Amino acid sequence: MKHIAPLAHLIEHFRALPGIGAKTATRLAYHVLDMDAGDARALAEAIIEAKEKIGLCNTCFNLSDRNPCMICASDKRDRSIICVVEQPQDVAAMERTRDYAGLYHVLHGALSPLDGIGPNNLRIKELLMRINGGGVGEVIMATNPNVEGEATAMYIAKLIKPLGVKVTRIAHGLPVGGDLEYADEVTLAKAMENRVEL
Amino acid sequence: MKHIAPLAHLIEHFRALPGIGAKTATRLAYHVLDMDAGDARALAEAIIEAKEKIGLCNTCFNLSDRNPCMICASDKRDRSIICVVEQPQDVAAMERTRDYAGLYHVLHGALSPLDGIGPNNLRIKELLMRINGGGVGEVIMATNPNVEGEATAMYIAKLIKPLGVKVTRIAHGLPVGGDLEYADEVTLAKAMENRVEL
Repeated sequence: MKHIAPLAHLIEHFRALPGIGAKTATRLAYHVLDMDAGDARALAEAIIEAKEKIGLCNTCFNLSDRNPCMICASDKRDRSIICVVEQPQDVAAMERTRDYAGLYHVLHGALSPLDGIGPNNLRIKELLMRINGGGVGEVIMATNPNVEGEATAMYIAKLIKPLGVKVTRIAHGLPVGGDLEYADEVTLAKAMENRVEL
Repeated sequence: MKHIAPLAHLIEHFRALPGIGAKTATRLAYHVLDMDAGDARALAEAIIEAKEKIGLCNTCFNLSDRNPCMICASDKRDRSIICVVEQPQDVAAMERTRDYAGLYHVLHGALSPLDGIGPNNLRIKELLMRINGGGVGEVIMATNPNVEGEATAMYIAKLIKPLGVKVTRIAHGLPVGGDLEYADEVTLAKAMENRVEL
């Protein structure tokens, strides 16, 4: 027997999510059928609302429900430092350290020729424009400590140095080959503290 | 920094799903923000559609988008046998064996005094009414092979036997303490084949 159509349809949608296999998708779908109708509707609406209300900040390209985002608009942040990360998740990870008070720039990826991701697929031009706008004293490259992240950091450092701005790289306190998003706060704070000039 | 509100809201909803912790919920929410707007809407709509279109069959209490359900309405099923299971997921597991051609009855739980689940919280009365309606030659108790499932099987067997209907229990081919939903097809088919009269 196949599952009845609306159930099979829901399972298929759950399966399309990352890290969700057939069994988990089935378990989630049955759970939804078991939920209060109100709770299920609230889940569905949270998905739609998140998509509708959240866009990218025009300055740092982090996810935001306003423009500029709260960090770019804050008068408590040091505007002379920009921390460059690959993904919005990395901003959230960095903020959890409560150790960094500068601004961010989200590249939305890392250089990866094998995947066809070159400089034009990342927000590099926009970063250079911010720096050319003046007032930036240091750019911290906080891309992931793996091959693509290192290459991206080196590439961007080469573009920025001629502009007379200091470029640093977070220290290898992070496990090499790891993922910045899942680093613990202490390691991440340490990596920020030990950053070295490129 | 906390996540921006619509994102935090979505993470919270994902976290309320079974087996989804904080990190997975966060990963799923960021994935949703990364999806095409159309795909995200389709996911949300699949949730609402599944809740709206799927109810319980008035006869066997399995999940169904019609009434009676496809199994109860089918003229290819042996109406003299009823297989009693705890959950709709168990019907799906049983159907995957392609070995059983009778009808089902879904209790929606098992007796569990500690959790306050007594006979009135299960679809036992409805099962007895079906049997009293006539034409039933055998009831197979396919509740889970754990303490609650065994107790439920024994309890229901005691109620049915006086009605002159054969009551059987699926064999302990299933790992004891396990979960019927996740049994493999061969084990489950074996357990059906070796069922013994209670």
